Amino acid sequence: MLEEIQKTIAPELERYKAIFRSALQADNELLAAALTHLTRKPGKMIRPTLVILCAREGGAVTDEVLHAAAGLEMLHTASLVHDDVVDESAMRRGQRSVNALFDNKAAVLVGDFITSKALTEVALTRRLEIVDSMARLGQMLADGEIQQLNNTHSTVFSEQAYYEVITKKTAVLFETCAYAGALLGGADAATIQRLQRFAHLVGLCFQMRDDIFDFDESLNVGKPKGNDLQEGKLTLPVLYALNQELSSLNPQPSALNHFGRLALRVRALEASRLEIQELVDFTIQSGGIAYAESEMQRLANEARTLLSDLRDPAVAHALSLYLDFVIKRTL
Amino acid sequence: MLEEIQKTIAPELERYKAIFRSALQADNELLAAALTHLTRKPGKMIRPTLVILCAREGGAVTDEVLHAAAGLEMLHTASLVHDDVVDESAMRRGQRSVNALFDNKAAVLVGDFITSKALTEVALTRRLEIVDSMARLGQMLADGEIQQLNNTHSTVFSEQAYYEVITKKTAVLFETCAYAGALLGGADAATIQRLQRFAHLVGLCFQMRDDIFDFDESLNVGKPKGNDLQEGKLTLPVLYALNQELSSLNPQPSALNHFGRLALRVRALEASRLEIQELVDFTIQSGGIAYAESEMQRLANEARTLLSDLRDPAVAHALSLYLDFVIKRTL
Repeated sequence: MLEEIQKTIAPELERYKAIFRSALQADNELLAAALTHLTRKPGKMIRPTLVILCAREGGAVTDEVLHAAAGLEMLHTASLVHDDVVDESAMRRGQRSVNALFDNKAAVLVGDFITSKALTEVALTRRLEIVDSMARLGQMLADGEIQQLNNTHSTVFSEQAYYEVITKKTAVLFETCAYAGALLGGADAATIQRLQRFAHLVGLCFQMRDDIFDFDESLNVGKPKGNDLQEGKLTLPVLYALNQELSSLNPQPSALNHFGRLALRVRALEASRLEIQELVDFTIQSGGIAYAESEMQRLANEARTLLSDLRDPAVAHALSLYLDFVIKRTL
Repeated sequence: MLEEIQKTIAPELERYKAIFRSALQADNELLAAALTHLTRKPGKMIRPTLVILCAREGGAVTDEVLHAAAGLEMLHTASLVHDDVVDESAMRRGQRSVNALFDNKAAVLVGDFITSKALTEVALTRRLEIVDSMARLGQMLADGEIQQLNNTHSTVFSEQAYYEVITKKTAVLFETCAYAGALLGGADAATIQRLQRFAHLVGLCFQMRDDIFDFDESLNVGKPKGNDLQEGKLTLPVLYALNQELSSLNPQPSALNHFGRLALRVRALEASRLEIQELVDFTIQSGGIAYAESEMQRLANEARTLLSDLRDPAVAHALSLYLDFVIKRTL
């Protein structure tokens, strides 16, 4: 599905790749090795594709558009490198994380270097609005990750806190991609806003799909199953299951049952592999996956309605397929 | 000395402080606590003072100048927060480091947040040249720290490698401060370049002075003595002492003597406190401090010649005092 869309923007994606690759160079040996490692697999270019499609709705996929796409992808990459340090993750996209391959120290600095390279790219857009939007994105990404860290100390199972985190960690990134593409492509203010909202919803769906994967044994996203729980993160499926269970505990809704206590042990990173599996099974049996799927579908439906007013029907069609890819992907 | 200079730009520094303080705010509890901790002590405003003085040579200390000063100070702060993670430092500016007060994870994210806030400030200068120079500065800071990390695995005692690291870690920061101030203040191209070169040399002197402190028991810079050696860093005084010793070992200049082997143990973080003290004593007795002092003086003299052609004699006088402060400071 993604390939189908990307065929229609193949020349632009080639130009994007050349910009991305040539920007991430360094003399320093360790740095060069880390950058080579990170860029070995070209990736699915999910976010650059969105930037380019939104620029098409405006009209022109200029070099500035591609610099914005490269800058945003680099900021995202830097943020993942740091997140892996924070989460002590050894794997990323099916290969070893920078912190695992080198160490935490190197990973912190490699992330900083890539962030600064991202800024160089964004300066090449020659638009201060884009610089400013990237600054706000960077704040959101860090703030969201800190909030996620804080949530592991919380004793409540709040869906609202979940949505806040995925908004900051994922939705704002997609939104900024659409903003940059549409603005630099030359779209009018109303269209920019519509595409931003569309991308925001797509970003939420993207993260929800990712979080569902973690519970679904029939699927594989290149990371170990139950990975979020192993990192102490309770996502939408398990939050729903826990809240369902809690609400059946009237008249003492604040009392924690067996699974509530187990979930807190998971958050505190005290649960065994067997206990994590128990929580996974509980989530599935309580309809947590079905619930998260339906919530995602609701947001996807809202997103799709935003495409009806676009100027270019080819772009509207491509973005609709893009949305399908995000919610239906199995990888 | 610094106070004397700062009296002449007191209103500008007050405006700067207000901008800096109001920018570093956050809703997030952990983040807010870290930012409060970091901004509790106002600091000596060494770099903002340089930005403002260079802007004066151009003419006007506009709000854009102060946003540049705030942005650069924030990027510097973020870089220190990450350096403390990398160096496992528990203290910074006489108080606990962010990683010590919270943990490494929080410090990584707090640094990222501040970097993004710095970018917001820099966007407020409304000049893409400043955005771009900050991007290059960020790359240098990360690259320099990685190079310093790499140097701890090196078996050579290279003064050139030392100068490369302090150029990237300190001189480019000072240089960027002068560039931003002079450009935004409205100086002509030749003056901008002259002030950049001046600031570059001042930055080198600043770091050399700092590195001398680490060996000088009569002084105190709010960090433990022999701290660099404890972190495995060999700076100019000890490099000179080692090279003096090695060059007297002809005809086998590559053979390491007692102190050479000791220095490699220090780099590998394998030396005891007593051994570190032995290397400190050796450095002092070999004239390492005197050598570093004279090298610093040489650079300071070169810097001072650059002030003769400035338009505003008051600025030239202030920058000369500024240079005196940097090389003579005892704190």
